[in-house]
Amino acid sequence: MSSERLVLGIDPGLVKTGWGVVASISNSIKYIDCGVIRTAASESMETRLVRIYDEVTRLISDFKPAAVAMEDVFINMNPKSSEKLIMARTAAFLAVAKAGFFIDHFKPNEIKKNVTGSGHAPKEQVHIMVQKILGATIPNDRKTHTLDSMDALAAAICRVFGRGGG
Amino acid sequence: MSSERLVLGIDPGLVKTGWGVVASISNSIKYIDCGVIRTAASESMETRLVRIYDEVTRLISDFKPAAVAMEDVFINMNPKSSEKLIMARTAAFLAVAKAGFFIDHFKPNEIKKNVTGSGHAPKEQVHIMVQKILGATIPNDRKTHTLDSMDALAAAICRVFGRGGG
Repeated sequence: MSSERLVLGIDPGLVKTGWGVVASISNSIKYIDCGVIRTAASESMETRLVRIYDEVTRLISDFKPAAVAMEDVFINMNPKSSEKLIMARTAAFLAVAKAGFFIDHFKPNEIKKNVTGSGHAPKEQVHIMVQKILGATIPNDRKTHTLDSMDALAAAICRVFGRGGG
Repeated sequence: MSSERLVLGIDPGLVKTGWGVVASISNSIKYIDCGVIRTAASESMETRLVRIYDEVTRLISDFKPAAVAMEDVFINMNPKSSEKLIMARTAAFLAVAKAGFFIDHFKPNEIKKNVTGSGHAPKEQVHIMVQKILGATIPNDRKTHTLDSMDALAAAICRVFGRGGG
């Protein structure tokens, strides 16, 4: 157990920030936990960003990961959506940085390539491979929104495999 | 002195985040302090955002303002610059929100209009009016970068005057 290294993956978003924790044990990789931090459009931006910040801080304090991986944000869409996404990502980023980590960033295509072998794999294929790699059937639990956190688990797996590996 | 209300103004930026504190005392407004939080391009994004967050947290703790005003970010420029600016602003925003404040945002043109009477006034005119309104000659001290914090003082003045007022 002492050689078990936990990796926290984060897929930031203002409405839903997915998170997933995997364990890297010598040559294998194991599913630990995952979930989603949710905020509502009816809440103030102050409340929403503080929740993302506080929840990510709590995850780090609870799981004590050895590394944190984050999916890079797409900023090719409309400016207002990009702005909100960047704000949510910065809140998560800052919580991780305040905890003393340097964040490993992975581009969406890099994550897809790493877990499926193709940088253009559809979302469903990524989810199938995440479960295969983790050797676990992660239930699509609507309450805990496990499906929404698949991309966060994929980022964590990416961090364990290492850049360009697979 | 008990009726003195301090307002903290913030003009966010990744390289330079200007800040200024003014006091609102019945019908008058008084200069208290100003400065700039600086980060270098050679530093990691983690270090830069944590510094902005920590320094804004310290300012609130030191001055105990009654309100916090922030200049809204222009996001019409190139995406990479916008991204950095939004990240810096979010770090400042989050420090203020974590301290329990709702932030008062003012658009650049609203601030210009409020302190000069014209939404298209040049920067120099804003600086002249800030000093007139505060009844103080704020030295252009290169060490403390007081000139860089004029826009933050203007945002704080804007908050005291009230929206659309003057």
